[in-house]
Amino acid sequence: MNEKQVKEITKRDIDFAKWYTDVVKKADLVDYSSVKGSMIIRPYGYAIWENMQRILDKKFKETGHENLQMPMFIPESLLQVEKDHVKGFAPEVAWVTYGGVNKLEERMCVRPTSETLFCDHFKKIISSYKDLPLLYNQWCTIVRWEKTTRPFLRSREILWQEGHTMHQSEEDALNETLRMLKIYEDFQKNILAIPVFTGKKTDKEKFAGAKATYAIEAMMYDGIALQNATSHYFGQNFSKVFNIKFLNKDNKLENPYQTSWGCTTRMIGALVMVHSDDRGLVLPPRIAPVKVVIIPIGNDEAVNKAINEITQDLKDSNVTYKIDNSDKTPGFKFAQAEVKGYPIRIEVGKRDLENGCVTIVRRDTLEKIKVLISDAIIKVNELLINIQNDMYEKALKRRNSMIYYPDTYEQMKDIAKNKPGFIYTNWCGNEECENKIKDELGLKSRCIPFENNEPTGNKKCICCKKDAKTKIYWAKQY
Amino acid sequence: MNEKQVKEITKRDIDFAKWYTDVVKKADLVDYSSVKGSMIIRPYGYAIWENMQRILDKKFKETGHENLQMPMFIPESLLQVEKDHVKGFAPEVAWVTYGGVNKLEERMCVRPTSETLFCDHFKKIISSYKDLPLLYNQWCTIVRWEKTTRPFLRSREILWQEGHTMHQSEEDALNETLRMLKIYEDFQKNILAIPVFTGKKTDKEKFAGAKATYAIEAMMYDGIALQNATSHYFGQNFSKVFNIKFLNKDNKLENPYQTSWGCTTRMIGALVMVHSDDRGLVLPPRIAPVKVVIIPIGNDEAVNKAINEITQDLKDSNVTYKIDNSDKTPGFKFAQAEVKGYPIRIEVGKRDLENGCVTIVRRDTLEKIKVLISDAIIKVNELLINIQNDMYEKALKRRNSMIYYPDTYEQMKDIAKNKPGFIYTNWCGNEECENKIKDELGLKSRCIPFENNEPTGNKKCICCKKDAKTKIYWAKQY
Repeated sequence: MNEKQVKEITKRDIDFAKWYTDVVKKADLVDYSSVKGSMIIRPYGYAIWENMQRILDKKFKETGHENLQMPMFIPESLLQVEKDHVKGFAPEVAWVTYGGVNKLEERMCVRPTSETLFCDHFKKIISSYKDLPLLYNQWCTIVRWEKTTRPFLRSREILWQEGHTMHQSEEDALNETLRMLKIYEDFQKNILAIPVFTGKKTDKEKFAGAKATYAIEAMMYDGIALQNATSHYFGQNFSKVFNIKFLNKDNKLENPYQTSWGCTTRMIGALVMVHSDDRGLVLPPRIAPVKVVIIPIGNDEAVNKAINEITQDLKDSNVTYKIDNSDKTPGFKFAQAEVKGYPIRIEVGKRDLENGCVTIVRRDTLEKIKVLISDAIIKVNELLINIQNDMYEKALKRRNSMIYYPDTYEQMKDIAKNKPGFIYTNWCGNEECENKIKDELGLKSRCIPFENNEPTGNKKCICCKKDAKTKIYWAKQY
Repeated sequence: MNEKQVKEITKRDIDFAKWYTDVVKKADLVDYSSVKGSMIIRPYGYAIWENMQRILDKKFKETGHENLQMPMFIPESLLQVEKDHVKGFAPEVAWVTYGGVNKLEERMCVRPTSETLFCDHFKKIISSYKDLPLLYNQWCTIVRWEKTTRPFLRSREILWQEGHTMHQSEEDALNETLRMLKIYEDFQKNILAIPVFTGKKTDKEKFAGAKATYAIEAMMYDGIALQNATSHYFGQNFSKVFNIKFLNKDNKLENPYQTSWGCTTRMIGALVMVHSDDRGLVLPPRIAPVKVVIIPIGNDEAVNKAINEITQDLKDSNVTYKIDNSDKTPGFKFAQAEVKGYPIRIEVGKRDLENGCVTIVRRDTLEKIKVLISDAIIKVNELLINIQNDMYEKALKRRNSMIYYPDTYEQMKDIAKNKPGFIYTNWCGNEECENKIKDELGLKSRCIPFENNEPTGNKKCICCKKDAKTKIYWAKQY
């Protein structure tokens, strides 16, 4: 890659889709493979996923969850046990029909999700309220046979985690559903610097087989929504059909109450689409695999000495860094550092060193700051906090500027046509209106937020004008 | 589970196979699933795998390797590129033939290993010696359609890591092959407390498509061999057929030199089969997810106070522990602690406390030690080191007592029939003898060790009596 190649990133405001694929490719997050519909997550992209895993896994374990590993195959008969579930997933699974040269007696799909496998196991290990709650999580790859795919956003193979839990009561299970949603929300906000709406999905949009689905809805730079994590409450739907029973405290047999919740590498796509710019990736410091890149200008004793001093301070402060010692020009290295989205770059050159200084450059604002070598580490630590906060505030401001509150269907139509973003309206709660809005305006319901969701204004549904039951967000979606 | 159930573990010396499945089931390492040939790795078993991953992943990263994620599917045409490779793997892969309701134009297998996928990627990203070495690793699940399966040892789905690297020269690639073998060897010895032989596999037993395979060979308690990790040198076999080329330092196009290396959850099976006993699992402290279990005898203020004191010390010493506060009897808890193989259990009861003492029990020897509460942490830390060392020494002694050195084929035949273990003999290097020994004696070649491998005695092959080229280990294998 040379400076010219960096400049070859398509402009974000000209062709967002092309800009996105340019960035994920040029920043070495992914590569295409010869396997149609599947991508390669390259080391730099995978390092972001490892950071996500590390942070979330710690949260899951702190809240009492244990990891395990289920089979990756589901026999057809097992997938079919819960009827809504099979209807939702059967059309998009990959079927294994042969083992070596032998045709299988019963075909198996590669798991699109693992509720059925977990229930099959729960049935064997749950017998008393003393066995509950069972709080399990699995990190694995799932497969959904998508027709059109895009790196991270829609792929046939998806790396994810799926939590599966069983509880004694509806209340316990609902608390778990919302507790995990909150963990996702905090992660998006505090680590990914992505502002989100959380709330309940409509019945039409809920998970196949769930009683209720709660989701994290983020807005991308282009105003299109991305569902970034979900948490489902199943009630006894699966435990009844799988005949899972426990002896409750009153010594009566009862079906336990279930949840599941998951998030995927799609969050990497969100990171790109919320924060990045025409120069490439911009990563929030708390998720960046490399927080600081040091670029020597010239190969000189003074330069090396200054770099040694700075790297020692970075090590002591536990700040991940890399030194770009390649044989490229400084100009190339600056450009590449920008494409890769390292939050901070430190330029160490002779001219600055004559004044005892180095130049620190923020990736998010491109602001250049000259500091004394001895002050560099203080400035770096301060900037890492500021960059994280400023990126969130910037994303929040942009998102909030792209939420619309029409009073009439005509206004809504006009916004849907001309203004990308979220639309917040009164809604009657009926699927007919939801379908009409989808068919006519291309908008899908996002979620009913937990707060400030009472109908306002004329209190009528934006679509049918009957009494509204709630407010709800609408948007185009990825 | 009750005390009786613990006693129901089949005696190891009566039926080793049944003992093994009893232990892995009763210690909650695995459960069977409704998916034929696939097992569930339960939280306690998965926690052992997470420890293995954490320790090995650190070593891989320290030696410059990066993780990434390749597709899990391989189109049939891609699998076929290297002819020895496809011949070795095609008979045992799972074929995906349908995506949803649509028959695929080209069927795909679930990866049985990923050399072809990596080469397909390497071709795109390697162009100069400056791109080399490329040091990649992947943690993932692979599938091999085994007919008969046993938990951890032989399963259709295998959790593993696979390293794939590319180098400028044969020397660099061979060094990498042996460097990674050494990492596995150290891991087996120092962490798993398993003594191993390392060496080269015969041509007959090498990996399909490799120039040379090196392996870690361990002996189980019953004298049967388990290959616990492998490291392969490919030379340019794949890089030629995949047409991967780089401009070398002399400005000439050349095919790079390749390695791959891997280890799997099979190592958990080895842990069980080397160390465990009639009471259940015995885990070396350095791999045990929980190092100390504390069992209160009676619910009493003095008991709780002593437990608080001990757990604070354990926390400060970074020793993982759990307190068994269930409503079972102490007798049950002792038995369960033994089934689970926690290296140390601390019994805290009123009678001991009257003398200011608690009782510490070593899982490996069942030795009971009374210590003052204030000395407990010192004793625990000392025991964790001693147990680790003693378990290795015990396994080493047993293994060495089961290695035989026959001079004639008749002696070898007699040993093969009557004495489980490894047999070390002179060998001519020809596959005919290797086949004869396999067919007549049921023994497979294990490896040619790196040292002390010169023919001894009459220096003739144990089988054909022609001049021997080397010494080699033989054994029955899992």
